[in-house]
Amino acid sequence: MDRPKGATLQVPLVILGLGGVGRALLRQVLDTRNAVARRAGLALRPVGLVDSQAALVNPDGLTDELLERALQVKAAGASLGDLAGSLPRAGLAIPPRAIVLDLTASLETRPLLHAALANGGGVVLANKLGLAGPYEEAKPLFDARRVRYEATVGAGLPVIATLRTLLNTGDPVTRVEGVLSGTLAYLAWQLEQNVAYSVAIVRARALGYTEPDPREDLGGRDVARKALIMARTAGWALEMEDLEIEALYPRAWSEMSVEEFLDQARALDQSYAMRVAEARARGEVLRYVAHVGRAGGTIGLAAVPKASSLGSLQGTANMIRVVTERYHQEPLVISGPGAGTEVTAAGVLGDIIDLARGDWQKESM
Amino acid sequence: MDRPKGATLQVPLVILGLGGVGRALLRQVLDTRNAVARRAGLALRPVGLVDSQAALVNPDGLTDELLERALQVKAAGASLGDLAGSLPRAGLAIPPRAIVLDLTASLETRPLLHAALANGGGVVLANKLGLAGPYEEAKPLFDARRVRYEATVGAGLPVIATLRTLLNTGDPVTRVEGVLSGTLAYLAWQLEQNVAYSVAIVRARALGYTEPDPREDLGGRDVARKALIMARTAGWALEMEDLEIEALYPRAWSEMSVEEFLDQARALDQSYAMRVAEARARGEVLRYVAHVGRAGGTIGLAAVPKASSLGSLQGTANMIRVVTERYHQEPLVISGPGAGTEVTAAGVLGDIIDLARGDWQKESM
Repeated sequence: MDRPKGATLQVPLVILGLGGVGRALLRQVLDTRNAVARRAGLALRPVGLVDSQAALVNPDGLTDELLERALQVKAAGASLGDLAGSLPRAGLAIPPRAIVLDLTASLETRPLLHAALANGGGVVLANKLGLAGPYEEAKPLFDARRVRYEATVGAGLPVIATLRTLLNTGDPVTRVEGVLSGTLAYLAWQLEQNVAYSVAIVRARALGYTEPDPREDLGGRDVARKALIMARTAGWALEMEDLEIEALYPRAWSEMSVEEFLDQARALDQSYAMRVAEARARGEVLRYVAHVGRAGGTIGLAAVPKASSLGSLQGTANMIRVVTERYHQEPLVISGPGAGTEVTAAGVLGDIIDLARGDWQKESM
Repeated sequence: MDRPKGATLQVPLVILGLGGVGRALLRQVLDTRNAVARRAGLALRPVGLVDSQAALVNPDGLTDELLERALQVKAAGASLGDLAGSLPRAGLAIPPRAIVLDLTASLETRPLLHAALANGGGVVLANKLGLAGPYEEAKPLFDARRVRYEATVGAGLPVIATLRTLLNTGDPVTRVEGVLSGTLAYLAWQLEQNVAYSVAIVRARALGYTEPDPREDLGGRDVARKALIMARTAGWALEMEDLEIEALYPRAWSEMSVEEFLDQARALDQSYAMRVAEARARGEVLRYVAHVGRAGGTIGLAAVPKASSLGSLQGTANMIRVVTERYHQEPLVISGPGAGTEVTAAGVLGDIIDLARGDWQKESM
């Protein structure tokens, strides 16, 4: 495996989004490109960086010096527009055959993704929004051979790759379930340790596990997006409306400020503590679990046996259980950290390599 | 994903070994080839079947009728030599560009594997022996880009694919550990439920979980082979001697007949029951665990917290925990059934597709 073999293939990369994941990905590309060239025969070459305002593009490759400066500028919270040579984002053209990495949380990238595919290139997504939108709009992304999206579920955990291998080997998926949010895993784990609901939320927020507004996590929509992406990967044409979602705060609190919400949360401490105690009396613990099958799914707090695999989860770990025709008595289970910029970026990098070694290379030669 | 796209590529397959896994694989190929053609653009075509005595070969493809007859003959315990058109195994030539599947438990396949690689083809192994032999002899198999061996560890669980993705993305593996034997997982789980050691062995044997001679499982060498294969995949040039193996029966009993051994086993019931009780007093359970790192490893019965992921394992489930630079606080964990002809064959089929879509195709065009 350690031999440079044959000609190394140039792989032009355009990075959309230079937040935490985008910067981690660019750093990983710079740090691992020699290993990738040696092991996979691929020369990863950033040719474009794009943030919400501006772009740096050079089809022959951006220099390391410029890439390092871009990393500094973005880490400092500024825009690529502050760098010499940048152009307004509106003027961006995707170079031919480039693999475009969508590491944003925006639907505005859609034309750029389509441009990449039309241009003989590929697409790697950490962005869930397009994949989890209305099925008719999402379908082309699931159908295209030159699209990958491992990082959208479980960060770097091999969830989508495993689903694809099962399906490619003719093993239909019948059910997918699991804990898909590190934030809500942490909350459930804290509740289990008799930490009050409101305290657990404040802790999770202080540790950076939640969005600035924790309701974005507690509402369950991000979990639902992941469940929908797995369902659609399994071949089920489900919509968001086919998932029943239990939010972990009352809808009536949606309009409050974050501070008001955190203050109000104490009112729920007792009812959550009672649910925990009731479960414990049965040898069970609470987990925020998604279940999805061909006809739809449910997402919410569920009591599971403490001695089960879901019950043994600790901290922020995710777990995905896949039931198929062949894995019908015992599921195939993948677990581990399902969030964090490094492992998310690693999921994107794995996709780049998988795509560039296979479908992209064939269809662009 | 559902479109037949572009020309379908012919993938000639030679199957070495038509025991349970070989027959399951051939059946899966026949049952899924339309789906594989549609999803992956590959036309899987068996061109050779080989057992310990005879071979059926046609570089243009064996007919479905002949394949079905071969399945019947082998299921009935007879030899391919009983079929018209078969030739003695000694006369076998590997057709050019064929992917050879080694589903035997023999080292005699080695020349055929080398012939396949020399002939522009590829190799997929469920056979552990060559990979777990002396490192100098095994190294060419680990180094070759056209060799896959997912089914050697955890059957169809995505263990080797995950290790390869981690390494390909520049994330060095620092430690691998887990439960790698369904048989010994079952034994540990039975002990945990206060079943006597000798009774658990008889049960496991009656359920078909052990080899006809259970000492082949209890000795731990098969687990050691899997640990060695993972270690070498991680890039560590370890030998079998670098692993400390605890056998679950005294070496002095190696020469007995199976019946004598099963009878004698009762003498160990009490000491194992005591180990279980001591662990339980600490909130722990026993598991037969392999730990391996860069410098070597240990394989044996270990006490783990009942509430841990290893402690929550039930039945025959395997579990593999991978610690890397990026997965250093919490490991990446894969678990599920790690034995069985169907899932083992599925692991082989996944490898065929991965190989044929990527390295095999490129280097043989």
